[in-house]
Amino acid sequence: MSFLSRDRFGTMFQSLFDRTPDTGPKVEQDMPTLCAALLDSKSETQDRQLARAILLKYHHGTDADHRAFFDHWLNNMDIDVADLGSAVLAYDANHSPAAYARMMAAMRAPRIRLFQKLAQVTGGAKCLVKIREDIRKAARDAPDLKRLELDLFDQLESWFNRGFLVLDPINWETPANVLEKIIAYEAVHAIQDWDDLRRRLQPADRRCYGFFHPRMPDDPIIFVEVALTAEIPGSVDDLLAQDRQPTDFNDLTTATFYSISNCHPGLAGISFGNALIKQVVRLLQQELPQLDTFVTLSPIPGLSKWAPDDAVPDAALAATYLTQAKRADGLPLDPVARFHIGNGALVHAVHENANSSPAGQKQSFGMMVNYLYDLDQVDANAETYANTLTVAMSKKVRQLTTP
Amino acid sequence: MSFLSRDRFGTMFQSLFDRTPDTGPKVEQDMPTLCAALLDSKSETQDRQLARAILLKYHHGTDADHRAFFDHWLNNMDIDVADLGSAVLAYDANHSPAAYARMMAAMRAPRIRLFQKLAQVTGGAKCLVKIREDIRKAARDAPDLKRLELDLFDQLESWFNRGFLVLDPINWETPANVLEKIIAYEAVHAIQDWDDLRRRLQPADRRCYGFFHPRMPDDPIIFVEVALTAEIPGSVDDLLAQDRQPTDFNDLTTATFYSISNCHPGLAGISFGNALIKQVVRLLQQELPQLDTFVTLSPIPGLSKWAPDDAVPDAALAATYLTQAKRADGLPLDPVARFHIGNGALVHAVHENANSSPAGQKQSFGMMVNYLYDLDQVDANAETYANTLTVAMSKKVRQLTTP
Amino acid sequence: MSFLSRDRFGTMFQSLFDRTPDTGPKVEQDMPTLCAALLDSKSETQDRQLARAILLKYHHGTDADHRAFFDHWLNNMDIDVADLGSAVLAYDANHSPAAYARMMAAMRAPRIRLFQKLAQVTGGAKCLVKIREDIRKAARDAPDLKRLELDLFDQLESWFNRGFLVLDPINWETPANVLEKIIAYEAVHAIQDWDDLRRRLQPADRRCYGFFHPRMPDDPIIFVEVALTAEIPGSVDDLLAQDRQPTDFNDLTTATFYSISNCHPGLAGISFGNALIKQVVRLLQQELPQLDTFVTLSPIPGLSKWAPDDAVPDAALAATYLTQAKRADGLPLDPVARFHIGNGALVHAVHENANSSPAGQKQSFGMMVNYLYDLDQVDANAETYANTLTVAMSKKVRQLTTP
Amino acid sequence: MSFLSRDRFGTMFQSLFDRTPDTGPKVEQDMPTLCAALLDSKSETQDRQLARAILLKYHHGTDADHRAFFDHWLNNMDIDVADLGSAVLAYDANHSPAAYARMMAAMRAPRIRLFQKLAQVTGGAKCLVKIREDIRKAARDAPDLKRLELDLFDQLESWFNRGFLVLDPINWETPANVLEKIIAYEAVHAIQDWDDLRRRLQPADRRCYGFFHPRMPDDPIIFVEVALTAEIPGSVDDLLAQDRQPTDFNDLTTATFYSISNCHPGLAGISFGNALIKQVVRLLQQELPQLDTFVTLSPIPGLSKWAPDDAVPDAALAATYLTQAKRADGLPLDPVARFHIGNGALVHAVHENANSSPAGQKQSFGMMVNYLYDLDQVDANAETYANTLTVAMSKKVRQLTTP
Repeated sequence: MSFLSRDRFGTMFQSLFDRTPDTGPKVEQDMPTLCAALLDSKSETQDRQLARAILLKYHHGTDADHRAFFDHWLNNMDIDVADLGSAVLAYDANHSPAAYARMMAAMRAPRIRLFQKLAQVTGGAKCLVKIREDIRKAARDAPDLKRLELDLFDQLESWFNRGFLVLDPINWETPANVLEKIIAYEAVHAIQDWDDLRRRLQPADRRCYGFFHPRMPDDPIIFVEVALTAEIPGSVDDLLAQDRQPTDFNDLTTATFYSISNCHPGLAGISFGNALIKQVVRLLQQELPQLDTFVTLSPIPGLSKWAPDDAVPDAALAATYLTQAKRADGLPLDPVARFHIGNGALVHAVHENANSSPAGQKQSFGMMVNYLYDLDQVDANAETYANTLTVAMSKKVRQLTTP
Repeated sequence: MSFLSRDRFGTMFQSLFDRTPDTGPKVEQDMPTLCAALLDSKSETQDRQLARAILLKYHHGTDADHRAFFDHWLNNMDIDVADLGSAVLAYDANHSPAAYARMMAAMRAPRIRLFQKLAQVTGGAKCLVKIREDIRKAARDAPDLKRLELDLFDQLESWFNRGFLVLDPINWETPANVLEKIIAYEAVHAIQDWDDLRRRLQPADRRCYGFFHPRMPDDPIIFVEVALTAEIPGSVDDLLAQDRQPTDFNDLTTATFYSISNCHPGLAGISFGNALIKQVVRLLQQELPQLDTFVTLSPIPGLSKWAPDDAVPDAALAATYLTQAKRADGLPLDPVARFHIGNGALVHAVHENANSSPAGQKQSFGMMVNYLYDLDQVDANAETYANTLTVAMSKKVRQLTTP
Repeated sequence: MSFLSRDRFGTMFQSLFDRTPDTGPKVEQDMPTLCAALLDSKSETQDRQLARAILLKYHHGTDADHRAFFDHWLNNMDIDVADLGSAVLAYDANHSPAAYARMMAAMRAPRIRLFQKLAQVTGGAKCLVKIREDIRKAARDAPDLKRLELDLFDQLESWFNRGFLVLDPINWETPANVLEKIIAYEAVHAIQDWDDLRRRLQPADRRCYGFFHPRMPDDPIIFVEVALTAEIPGSVDDLLAQDRQPTDFNDLTTATFYSISNCHPGLAGISFGNALIKQVVRLLQQELPQLDTFVTLSPIPGLSKWAPDDAVPDAALAATYLTQAKRADGLPLDPVARFHIGNGALVHAVHENANSSPAGQKQSFGMMVNYLYDLDQVDANAETYANTLTVAMSKKVRQLTTP
Repeated sequence: MSFLSRDRFGTMFQSLFDRTPDTGPKVEQDMPTLCAALLDSKSETQDRQLARAILLKYHHGTDADHRAFFDHWLNNMDIDVADLGSAVLAYDANHSPAAYARMMAAMRAPRIRLFQKLAQVTGGAKCLVKIREDIRKAARDAPDLKRLELDLFDQLESWFNRGFLVLDPINWETPANVLEKIIAYEAVHAIQDWDDLRRRLQPADRRCYGFFHPRMPDDPIIFVEVALTAEIPGSVDDLLAQDRQPTDFNDLTTATFYSISNCHPGLAGISFGNALIKQVVRLLQQELPQLDTFVTLSPIPGLSKWAPDDAVPDAALAATYLTQAKRADGLPLDPVARFHIGNGALVHAVHENANSSPAGQKQSFGMMVNYLYDLDQVDANAETYANTLTVAMSKKVRQLTTP
């Protein structure tokens, strides 16, 4: 009923924009000059030209150029602490709208205003995602850049808030320019080539869904691959076998989430996965009411590293690791466990000989785990966990961890 | 080439969402409790339920309820000035990322975090547009609410930034649920009914374009109505005459923007019109290379009010008003003049007997004005104007204003 | 999953085509010359120009012109009976492919080849629908034209075969240029204006669906209006009441088809209604599994005309008429009854005071009837009826007809 | 403007249809029984079930089964010659509509009615395309089957008439399930893999367009690959070089059609290529007004076979072959030449060392030819050629052929 409206948005203007020649004297100017001019500009046309010049300059810059830009933004476009301090005092003395407005202006560092103006051009927000990715890399050696990263996080969190994202199926009818990104972004079980991709998308017992931002329609934010199965699977080798037969439609009972990939390192720290899984669950329930089990088949990326050298690499070891190994803050040590348990899933089963790939052998002795999303329990689990850090698990897993 | 992607976004999930029953104990709780719970919530499921409960409570509230909500947000969810002051001092002492993060957290009032969480649910941003509209009304009698309005302005400016908007044609093939909004929103020359609407959209020499936010595809942000003509028109009565004949395609030389309507009072202060006009100009140039003149036919809303009682209501009076009557800040007194001149247009011609409607007679003795968008001059004009407040005008208008 | 592909078809080329100027010497020639030239043409470019010229000439012609065209096509472009006779004899003597090909060529009258060439231009098939409509009118006074009509029926039946039609929802998000056709085409309960239309499309308990031909996307072939109700309704006045409240979603049990309109008289005789009803039933069953009753609320157009002057206009009279009044061929006298009973529906209930409109009073003393589509029975009913002409009816109706 | 409507068509119902289980006793029956039942059926539901059963039976049949089906259709469902003969006589005696109707019915062989009923189910027409392909193969050894083929040709020509086809760009944003068909169907210069495909679709100086039937949106009918170049190219090796650089946008003057592929052998004999080329030319002229040359780079498939053993394989030989080697009917011997010259193109230039592929070497000693579509001449050329069989050629080519 509602699909009519979906077609009304397009990239007509975007492409028009893209044909605007990127020449002109502005690109010749140096970054500090361009940034200052953009902050000073009172004309929208100038805004657009300057913002494009800055983004182009960044695009063509080397790592060293980027580092210089970052330092400029960090040091020369920081918040004016003295001004902010006096504005806070003035507002404390008199809660007038004018004083409030002054304080709000003082709270916004010039670089924040710069980022906001850059986001005004089509494609600007996407460039800023890339810039934050670069800053995160650079910050490994230059911790001060974390302040800059924090500013961008704030902005990106606002622009990529879940209320603006759309859930879209990804399948063999999806445009090739989106699919090539799926191949590139798959982070859990690498996709070898287009034939491998087709095996994951085209069979009637396979699904894939992604979150997209409406202005980046050819670039997913996060996506999940799903296998529909007759029972809870215990081996990704079986799931991805080249010669497997699709499960008969009438036998399908279980949706297995076997791969979740975040696509943009520049959006790190913004939570998409929880919402994605739960929306996909609801969608599948609508489409296939016969499904009664929603489960993952997940890697255990931290197991080998954690295990003592003389440990016996069996299910008991994995179960103990997943449910008892904790960080200093009391959360599970394993990052994938942390994610699913935080979402309210429970540790359902551990499988030996589940992943024969070199990566699987190395990370976790070839073992994998199912996290179960029991829809009647998942909210309660999440709440209990948030309050008590109690890890939910099945009886079978509990027995494995009890000597 | 690019239109394929436009179809990939939809409201499938949105409608799914809308069918989630809005029941449950949460709606029974009072607003302060709900707001506190939402800020405390650590579960995304709970976030969603609480945000929906708050928006529903608002939706069903009376003006008095709303006022109570506003007061609660204003007074009990304000910035903690003492905390912010100490965070600023700490950052001043040590520019560490941790100190910066603490200061940034202190700068964000609880109500800002509330608004951000409300925006996470589908439709949330649109509700906040309505809420700001209501706050603006309430602030007339309660100036303190301006602080609240300022907070929302900041958020909405970020979510409705131009980089996220799409330009879309509005015509007789547009869905009815969008067209009925055009009828409702038209602010300059009221649309009587569907037949009147059709006369403005269907003829080959008429166009209409709007900016849309991708997640509000059935609700334009701003739209402009355009008449393609053989020469610069001097009367809106002629343009909108019921029995007029479309101009022959080969005679078209001029695009006349005869009505621009902002659709959402809750977005007041965010600039859309300038970008809209300039993008439409570029679009029309592409489609109809024969067009060489881009002009408005605009009302002069402040003329009668400004004119002395004994003034002769002629073109000289209007020209003088438009180019010489100024506000205290030196900008043109007439709001429409302020807009177009600020965009870089020049005051091209003034017409008597141009608008026989009661509103036209009352506002400006039936006079109207053309602002000319000369594409080779418009940027330079805007820059000059920004720097010197010099109003650009044609020779003819200059002569009218010279005694 | 599949909606991606739907967006790939458009009218880009169509509109391009439409801008081709329709001038040139060809339009000046008379119809016989143009028709002869088109049949002789060996160039596709010429084909297109001549076909457009013929269609334009028709479009601008008067009724008298049309009649002259019809006569020309009928008399001068008929099958060559002598040639066909000899081709049949030759094939009878030798079933060679060459003889077969010659016979097939002889079976195709020049006017058939003309119609086929006209259909090659975009929009051609739609013009031929209109032409058949005109021929049907003209044939009332000139029965010989029925031969021409028969030729066109054959072609149109092929082009508008059900395998090419698509079922599409029609709702308040449908483009206005489609909706205005719904207003124009509604044949059972006239739609007063856009507000009336909205009342039939927008409420959550109302649906409308149409069959469309892909190359006439803005012009439905047939459509049906559906009311979702809590029980089988007995009055169209209630269904269409301006101030009615939508039925609560959870109470919906029944889909009532209260209006079916064929849109193009030129397609008369090609069956669409049966397939439409059955596809809509399946669609609704998918969307709303709670629905267990599919029924019509139908007029009884022939009742008054059939009833003796002194008949008591009560339910017994209507039931008797519907189930016992027959044509010479044994089929029900009432055309609407003939349609639904032929589809396998049964006469379920008769209602007095069901339609207070003047038309309803005049046709059937304000009475209406429900035909029930019992999905477990409908095929068997249709088959029985096809073989035995037995009219299926409910016990209640049977009792009414038994003195 | 018009793209809204393109989105309104979909495959929603199609997929619904596809899920209808294909079981039931009908599939068990033999083909003659099923065909007889379908012709006898008076119920649309039964029609659909029987048509699906027949198509399924065909789908699962072996070559031998197919041959048996063909023979049944050919011999047992042929036209009734005696009946037709008497109907022709009756009509000859009296041109009444009834006599005409009887004759028309007699002209339609039972197998024609069968094919028409099969086309009524979604996907039916596509199956019949495949069936004709199979019949064409079988007819090599069984010439009588040509009669059957002729019947199907007639029907398919009606359903796939150009007025129903849409021209659609094929690019890197096209769904993968369409693109994989491009890889499969490319008949001139084979596409190695997805990377090769991308090199032909994604660069800004490459285009591809296809004709699609609206009810087969994922399966092109015919497509053409286009290279935009700075001058007329003389080597396909250069055009397809893996490491080539895209031509600068401002240098583009020429559109070169370097590959045209018909996708469905079952549609052989229905002309699509001429219309495709001319529509693409018009589209490109609109998009890129700077283009002034439209040309092919074509193979010369029959050259080697025609050339005497001792011929010198040079340009003069090729030019002579193309312009002077004729079939018995006076048309060019080379099939590609026949096509382009028939369209009104002229033989523009012949290139040695133009195609180093084994196929190119074998067919034509590595030579290729440009056919020029001079838009001001193409219609006149086509007409002249149709009347006089005069092959248009450039001066240069004429000189080559003059000793």
